[in-house]
Amino acid sequence: MSADEFDTIRRLFAPLATNPAARGLVDDVAVLEASGSLVVTTDAIVEGVHFLPDDPIETVAKKALRVNLSDLTAKGARCVGVLLTLVWPDQRPSAQLTTFADGLAEDLTFFDVPLLGGDTARTPGPLVVSMTALGEALEARIPSRADAIPGDHLWVTGFIGEAYLGLRALTELPPVLGASPDDQVDLAAIQVRSSYRTPYPPVPLAECIARYARASTDVSDGLVADAANIANASGVAIRLDAEAIPLGLAGHNYVAKHGAKGLVELITGGDDYQALFTADSAHRREILAISRAAGVNAVVIGHVTEGRGVKVIDANGAEIATYALGHRHTLGR
Amino acid sequence: MSADEFDTIRRLFAPLATNPAARGLVDDVAVLEASGSLVVTTDAIVEGVHFLPDDPIETVAKKALRVNLSDLTAKGARCVGVLLTLVWPDQRPSAQLTTFADGLAEDLTFFDVPLLGGDTARTPGPLVVSMTALGEALEARIPSRADAIPGDHLWVTGFIGEAYLGLRALTELPPVLGASPDDQVDLAAIQVRSSYRTPYPPVPLAECIARYARASTDVSDGLVADAANIANASGVAIRLDAEAIPLGLAGHNYVAKHGAKGLVELITGGDDYQALFTADSAHRREILAISRAAGVNAVVIGHVTEGRGVKVIDANGAEIATYALGHRHTLGR
Repeated sequence: MSADEFDTIRRLFAPLATNPAARGLVDDVAVLEASGSLVVTTDAIVEGVHFLPDDPIETVAKKALRVNLSDLTAKGARCVGVLLTLVWPDQRPSAQLTTFADGLAEDLTFFDVPLLGGDTARTPGPLVVSMTALGEALEARIPSRADAIPGDHLWVTGFIGEAYLGLRALTELPPVLGASPDDQVDLAAIQVRSSYRTPYPPVPLAECIARYARASTDVSDGLVADAANIANASGVAIRLDAEAIPLGLAGHNYVAKHGAKGLVELITGGDDYQALFTADSAHRREILAISRAAGVNAVVIGHVTEGRGVKVIDANGAEIATYALGHRHTLGR
Repeated sequence: MSADEFDTIRRLFAPLATNPAARGLVDDVAVLEASGSLVVTTDAIVEGVHFLPDDPIETVAKKALRVNLSDLTAKGARCVGVLLTLVWPDQRPSAQLTTFADGLAEDLTFFDVPLLGGDTARTPGPLVVSMTALGEALEARIPSRADAIPGDHLWVTGFIGEAYLGLRALTELPPVLGASPDDQVDLAAIQVRSSYRTPYPPVPLAECIARYARASTDVSDGLVADAANIANASGVAIRLDAEAIPLGLAGHNYVAKHGAKGLVELITGGDDYQALFTADSAHRREILAISRAAGVNAVVIGHVTEGRGVKVIDANGAEIATYALGHRHTLGR
């Protein structure tokens, strides 16, 4: 990146870095006054792997932030600042930098997160946006993946599989959702694209998760894979009630058309960036009340038992086989 | 990156993440107990921009760490942990991952830095290694770029221009240092290659910098450009004494051959990852004594005056013109 472009970037991002800790982005470091437990995470998104080359650039900025907020939220932490590393392709128009900064500014304002610093580099390859998020733990105990115990309820937020359908809607011809003139279908298509490009982690639920979650993780690799992460780390088994898994409009339509096979795709597809946590069944009412008040969809989708592994059970009590375990970011392969 | 490769990475890096804050890399976040000022920096290195495609992969791992330690050291901070984001090319042999992890492990041990967490992604493009380093401030006041005052001495550590010559030695034919059978020249060539691939920031001097530095930055964009950063941020002028600038063996040979033009190349070339700081002239003896004891070369190369800008002055008191201001990472253009 030329010195001129570097100045452009500093000019674009400095107005976002109003927090004193950022030192106006003119210093080499950020200085954060910290006390207590600092929760730290880092996540990178790569063009052609985690987002599409022609995704609107402002949504790329937002996605980079949101996938990091997803991790902090699932740990019951409030983000106190982010550092942005932008690896910008030689071939991408510089004008997009302004739009990227605008998109980031919008989301930083919306989520009330300060930009503390960062780094910029140029690349002959694809765009890479790497972010590190620093969070303040909202309770003394920070839920790990390993704290689930038999009897716990398993909760998930949001609607599962929307991002998966969004990716398919954006990349497949004919459209996965059908080219129907039906308004409902069009609306569903818009929703799923938006879920893929700008996932909405359950940030307002961070305090509730901090208070009630025993084990917790975000859903990024797919619901089944992330449930397996909790089960394996905790040395327990998890039973998922297929009927209880929250689907959006597009998801319901997809399962109506493709049956159990369709459902398995949705719950193994990944990119949801929702929270998946276990909690004492005694707290069901409180968690429901708080999530309703926060405007976050949170539902019990199963429970923790003795044993190992994850089973998905249908309405008749039969197990649904889930072959695909683990998110493989199928994009661009 | 396939799920298998992801497991490989976890297996490779988990043994490096022995600090409890890392949660064994099996959780989504790291949890750091923090109190006081936390100094945070992030720096990414990109294949073909900040390192050469055929640089040994273990030196790439080390460089990623060292460029971040450089920032913390210049701010008088001790690194308490790093997060690694590895964006690994589809085309690069997976076997190199092991060597990368080995190189990183060596340096983490050498610098006594815990690996706290990270992220891995695959890319169809060049290798990107992004790191975020968290540091503990060693004094209450953290030197910014803006704190220089007229009368201050200007100090620099290490030997300037070695990395610049190293990059040229690695990329140009005929070799910039000559293909002489002279042992001294061969030794110099080895030294400069090593300075480029594995810069050695003055980590042992962090406490001294914390105690005595008024303004401070690291030298990454080139000595003149980084001196200009201090001058501009502090609203002062800086006079550099050309004769005092510390050169290594290769640098001395280069200036002997190319004169002032050669010197200008060395002091504008960048990639040095040394510390550049100003301090009250009354502290000269203490700083010298501490740096000698720490085994770090630290010398006074100029002073701060009223005014604006940076001037490089030769032995006769005449100004040496430095056209190239700012580091442009000329590699791979």
